[in-house]
Amino acid sequence: MKSFPHRLLCAVAVVLIGAGCAMPRSRVSACVLMQADREFARAAELHSVANAFREFAAPNAVSLPMGEAPVRGREAIHKSLLDVPAGALSWSPVAGEISRSGDLGYTWGTYQFRVREGDAPTAVRHGKYVTIWKKQPDGSWKYVLDTGNSSPPNN
Amino acid sequence: MKSFPHRLLCAVAVVLIGAGCAMPRSRVSACVLMQADREFARAAELHSVANAFREFAAPNAVSLPMGEAPVRGREAIHKSLLDVPAGALSWSPVAGEISRSGDLGYTWGTYQFRVREGDAPTAVRHGKYVTIWKKQPDGSWKYVLDTGNSSPPNN
Repeated sequence: MKSFPHRLLCAVAVVLIGAGCAMPRSRVSACVLMQADREFARAAELHSVANAFREFAAPNAVSLPMGEAPVRGREAIHKSLLDVPAGALSWSPVAGEISRSGDLGYTWGTYQFRVREGDAPTAVRHGKYVTIWKKQPDGSWKYVLDTGNSSPPNN
Repeated sequence: MKSFPHRLLCAVAVVLIGAGCAMPRSRVSACVLMQADREFARAAELHSVANAFREFAAPNAVSLPMGEAPVRGREAIHKSLLDVPAGALSWSPVAGEISRSGDLGYTWGTYQFRVREGDAPTAVRHGKYVTIWKKQPDGSWKYVLDTGNSSPPNN
């Protein structure tokens, strides 16, 4: 329910654009990034985290994981995430912004990472992330940079 | 010396723009963000970290500090950094990118945070950061989002 107003605004924007209305471009288009981010999250939750991070990466994407060195390039990012179990990582965008030219923008939000070690009950780690998106020559949105860090519980 | 090629490109770009040459805009303009980031770092190193983070913040800037909840707004960010001693934090951009419209872009780089607790020798913590920049109505560049996370030593 939290994301309902954003979804509603997106739907209204699509209708108004279709009707040729003069909606402020930056407000309307940020919906595209929020939507891309939700699709990215859905792919990571339902299928393989590593594959989702490859599917949504620009070829020269950079990942800046907490506690690790930068990871450069789509294939290196994929490889770095192969050990993450399917369904362990989920996230939801909080806000986003896009350039006037509609080719570069970002989303940020919160994530939950479910960790299970041995026989211990599953622990949930909370965090925040930033994803920078760039429109590709084929019109799709891919991330060029992705990073995140830890939050206190329930943040 | 590491940043010399960027500085040189910036200088060349400024001359060519002045001469009306058709340099690729995205390549040229990213220099502006790298330069803004270096000025930001210089202000934080030479003066107060909290004041620098206020000076370079857009009014509605968001900070996503590691291990903490999001901090929203220029004044809240300033307040959150008041305990950081002058000279404790330094950083240097590695790369940046800007939109075609030249109104939104980002830099990322590495930081060093010098911590001194009690009589212990100063410890240096290494990390990475991302800063998202937005051109303001007065033509200046301010950050709208800033985040960072830890790296292994010497990364």
